[in-house]
Formats: sequence, C-alpha cells, structure tokens
Amino acid sequence: MNITQHELRQRLEALDTPSIADAMDSLDLYGPLQGIHNQVPGQKTIAGPAFTVFYRPFERNPGEFHNAGNYIDLVGEGEVIVVDNQGRCDCTVWGDILTEVALRNRICGTVIYGAARDIGEVQRVGYPLFSAAKFMYSGKNRVRAVDNQIPIKIGDVTVRPGDWIVADSSGALVIPLAQVEEVVRRAESIENTEQKIRASVRNGMGLEQARAMHRYDRPWETAATT
Amino acid sequence: MNITQHELRQRLEALDTPSIADAMDSLDLYGPLQGIHNQVPGQKTIAGPAFTVFYRPFERNPGEFHNAGNYIDLVGEGEVIVVDNQGRCDCTVWGDILTEVALRNRICGTVIYGAARDIGEVQRVGYPLFSAAKFMYSGKNRVRAVDNQIPIKIGDVTVRPGDWIVADSSGALVIPLAQVEEVVRRAESIENTEQKIRASVRNGMGLEQARAMHRYDRPWETAATT
Amino acid sequence: MNITQHELRQRLEALDTPSIADAMDSLDLYGPLQGIHNQVPGQKTIAGPAFTVFYRPFERNPGEFHNAGNYIDLVGEGEVIVVDNQGRCDCTVWGDILTEVALRNRICGTVIYGAARDIGEVQRVGYPLFSAAKFMYSGKNRVRAVDNQIPIKIGDVTVRPGDWIVADSSGALVIPLAQVEEVVRRAESIENTEQKIRASVRNGMGLEQARAMHRYDRPWETAATT
Repeated sequence: MNITQHELRQRLEALDTPSIADAMDSLDLYGPLQGIHNQVPGQKTIAGPAFTVFYRPFERNPGEFHNAGNYIDLVGEGEVIVVDNQGRCDCTVWGDILTEVALRNRICGTVIYGAARDIGEVQRVGYPLFSAAKFMYSGKNRVRAVDNQIPIKIGDVTVRPGDWIVADSSGALVIPLAQVEEVVRRAESIENTEQKIRASVRNGMGLEQARAMHRYDRPWETAATT
Repeated sequence: MNITQHELRQRLEALDTPSIADAMDSLDLYGPLQGIHNQVPGQKTIAGPAFTVFYRPFERNPGEFHNAGNYIDLVGEGEVIVVDNQGRCDCTVWGDILTEVALRNRICGTVIYGAARDIGEVQRVGYPLFSAAKFMYSGKNRVRAVDNQIPIKIGDVTVRPGDWIVADSSGALVIPLAQVEEVVRRAESIENTEQKIRASVRNGMGLEQARAMHRYDRPWETAATT
Repeated sequence: MNITQHELRQRLEALDTPSIADAMDSLDLYGPLQGIHNQVPGQKTIAGPAFTVFYRPFERNPGEFHNAGNYIDLVGEGEVIVVDNQGRCDCTVWGDILTEVALRNRICGTVIYGAARDIGEVQRVGYPLFSAAKFMYSGKNRVRAVDNQIPIKIGDVTVRPGDWIVADSSGALVIPLAQVEEVVRRAESIENTEQKIRASVRNGMGLEQARAMHRYDRPWETAATT
C-alpha cells in the first residue's frame, strides 16, 4: 500500500459514509450494512480495519457455562470489531465490560449485526457502538463466538478481516481492502465537488445549474486539490 | 380563505400533531403518516403547504447518469417537501446538498416516505427532517423524481399539493386544504380544553372528574378564548 | 417480605436491566419485554411494582364517546403503569394529560406495549416513558381500557399486578414478585463481580484471565459486600 494506515484513517474520518458510498458506487462496489445504526447520538465518523467475529447459537449441556466471547484481547489498536450474530435481536453480544476493554485497548469501535446492552453506559463514555438493536438479555449460554478473523456476512455484504469499516450517524459500511485507496481518493473528489456545489448554491445559483457546472455526474473526476 | 397563510402557519405551529389529529378525528378525517419520524431530536412543531415529489425506480442504460432529483428550485418559501419513494429504505433521496438549498430557500421542512442521509449534518444545522429511515446509499441512478406537484400516497393517506403538513416529535400528518381552517379552530379548542383539564388536575382534581367537567367528550366545542 | 418496598426500589434503581436479567437467568426466569424502548434519551434506571392495564379494540356506536382510559387515579405512588394494547402502533394510549397526572401522583413510570404521543412534552418534563412506538393518532373511541390489575401478556411474558418492573436505556423487564428479593441479591453480586473484572482489566489484566479469576461463570455467588 502507498498510504499508511494512519493516514488512511485520518483521511477516511475526515469524510462521511455518504461520500464513501458514492465513491464505491462509481466503482460498482456495494458496502452498506443495512439496518445497523449508531447507538450514541451525534456519532462522528470512525474508520478502521475490521476484526471479524462469528457467533453461532448452541445448546449448552446442563450446568455448563460459556462466555459469549473471549476474543477481545486479540483485537488490535485502531481496529473495528464487526460481530456477526446473524442479526439476532433477542439476545446481546456486547455490553459494558467489553466497552471498557475496548476503550483501554484503543479499539476504534464496534459494529454488531445483532443487539447490544448497557446502552446508558456506552453513551456515557461515548464509545462508538453501532448495532441492529438494543436489548438487555445476555447471549451468554445462548450464542458463542466460534471463530474470528474469518469472512462474515452482514446481510448480503461480505466483511473480510482487514477490510475497512467506516461508520457515522447515517450508518456503517465496508470497503474491501484492495480498493480502499482508490475509494478514499474518489470520496475526497466527491466531497470537493459537493463543497463547490454548496458554495455556488450559497451564492445564489440554482441547484441544477450548480450541479451541471461542477460535473455532479462524474464528481470523482474533480481534483481534490482544486 | 379567510385566514392568511402566515397566520395559519403561526397558529398550527403553536399546536402539536396530537391535538390536530384529534381535531381531524372529530371531522372524520384521517391524516397521520405512519412510520415517519423526526430525525432531529427535540423537533418542535413545523407547518406548511405540501410540495409533493414522486420518485420511481428505473434501470439506467450503461454510462448514463441521472440525478435523483432537481425539483428543489421549484419549491416555494415556507413549503414542506413531501417525497414519495414508496417507503424504500435501501437508498436515500435526501442529503446535505438538498438541506443546504432548503435552508437558503427558506423551505419549511422535508418529509420523506423513504430514507435520508447525511444525518449528522442535518442535525448539526437543525433542519426539520422527517423520514422512515436513515441510510447512506444514494438513490442516484436507482430512483428518479419523475413528477412533482401531483397527488401522492404515503401508506393509505393521500397528500395533494397545497395540503397542509404538520410534524413534530410525535410524527407527521396531512390536513386537506379545504378543511385546514376548521381543523385549526377545533385543534385550538381541544388544546384549550386540555389545558383546563390539566389545570384542574394540577389543583388536585381526579382525572375522570376533570374530563367530565371540561367536556372532554366534545373538546372542540370549547371556545378557544374562554 | 423481608426487605421494605422502599429499600427494594433503591437497590433495584442502583442496578441496571442487564445485571437484573443475568440474575433472573441464573434462576431460569425470563422477564425481558422485547421491543419496548425508552422514549426519553439518557433514561436512568427506574423500578416499581406493576399496575397493569388491559386495553381492547371496540366498535363504538355512532355518536358515542369513550375515553381511552380513566384508570390513572387508581394507580398508587411509586407504581409503574404497564399497558397492554397488544403492541398496536396505529393508535396511542398515552399522552401529555396522563403524563401530568402521573407526575402529580408520583407514579414511577409507564411501559406501553403499544404507542404513545406528546413525545416532545414527555421529553421536556423527563417522565420515564417506555413504549413500542410513538405516533399521534388517539386511541379514544378505538381502544378502551376494559380492565386493570389483572395479569397481562407483553409478547410471551406475563406481568402480574405487583410484579416488579425495571427499565432503563437498554429496555424494560419484569421480575415476578415472589422472586424479587433473590433477584436483587444475585444482581448485586453480579454487579460486584463485574466491577472486580473491570477493575482488573483497568489494571492491565486480559479479559479472559479476569473473568476466570472473579468466577464470571457463577457471578451471583460473589458476596456483594466483599
């Protein structure tokens, strides 16, 4: 890669999910994770490589106890945990202890295809949490993290370890690692085009004319520096 | 009309959607737009005549580009944009550029039967946005504003151009233009009745007695000025 | 009972729904009320005995008027109203007048298996309201409180008058009255165990090790006072 991970994160976090989705669109890539929402109001953009976790339901034997998951000490600083619990909303796979560990280990954020709990505490500390639902009934002894760092599916979208996750108040999406540099360049051009359109509009131009002038039909071709 | 549009707006915005829904109920009118919610927390009541926009899905030819919609320069000051995208939540028909134009053109607010994006920016500027969902995947090249200022349907409810839209933290509804004066008068009487009931309750009366005393069964008959 | 109601409330309100759900789990009890959410952001934990209300749809005769419900003067100080409207989201059974009476009568909070209105006002006064939905179309003349203080069902979960309701930002649940003392003791032990785990983690221990050391497999056995 030509851009360092540090720079990539900074540039992605200066953008937002709509411009990144548009950039992916221009490359015929689809990354949106439908039905996943920020649980902390006013969430700003976060971006980091995915650490994937795969949960499955299981029947425990009487008297056995199983943690829902012990993967978190394996997650690297700056990574985004992405948990596939098949969208189940009837039990939770994230809570206050995991949040505390995530903050201590400087994990970037968590995306749950399923439910999370301890929402009040998560909001109080401002940890970037995105999920399909909130609830309080534990996944312990009901579901189990059977694997991690394997490809998982959130709805129709595949997330591979190391793919980039970007998330904000509009939702969460995944950028395949091989395309992330081209996506960030195009997204910056799109953002640049949009800012020119907005400036023209602010100066009194009609939207249709402003869009035509600034080539809104091919916004990723605008040089980001002009 | 006997009441000016300016006065009508002021009187409606001093009310809320529950009292207006009750006033319509007393006239056997149904206006609630189910499943539409405020996207900006703490939304106060907005009211204005509807400017309707009708989107349809389409298949683009390879290489073609279509804006999702260029209608916004046609919308009048103080109007409420109502977009019918058939409740689709898998792509968006509202975002930050439209929000900026809407603010510049003093458009009153936007109601989307579908999804919106750039939610963080919309919340930051406090633009009155109501929608069925939030997401970030653009409607560009997927759906298209094929018509405007025609009757549209939000669920079972028809919205005609010029009908009044009222929306707040409880949701959004439409008042047919021909009934809006009678509705606002009845809603004010209802509000007046409710305030009397609340005052009686605050002074220690039981709710059942207070409701009977202030004729909660026919609250629209209370003179608003008494 | 050995613990006073006052003390029980204080101890439950110092906890949260996740630790209480875990305590119930350890006793093979299921209390979560799925699909019910706080309508006031940042809701702290509330707890009180249930006052149950059962609504049913009905067809009114022309010209008749029926309040949706007049039960509220029967509700005791510190109780939590639990309304079963069969999860209907197309009309409301809670609003600003009931909120005002509830505050005056020092009712602890309200849980609606259905929809509520006047959300802006409820948020302004900070009344603890939990519901499946928000809307503005009244239940008056559509549904009717036909009974109260009888067992009701919220989804699959039975709520009996006097059972304890606990609710916060993660959701709402019910504790059968007969088990509430054992549940509060176990929940305090769980909370205590979790705080030890969090302290160990904060001091640099791995999560798996911290969980093992503090017996996360049987957290309710930890003495709450150690």
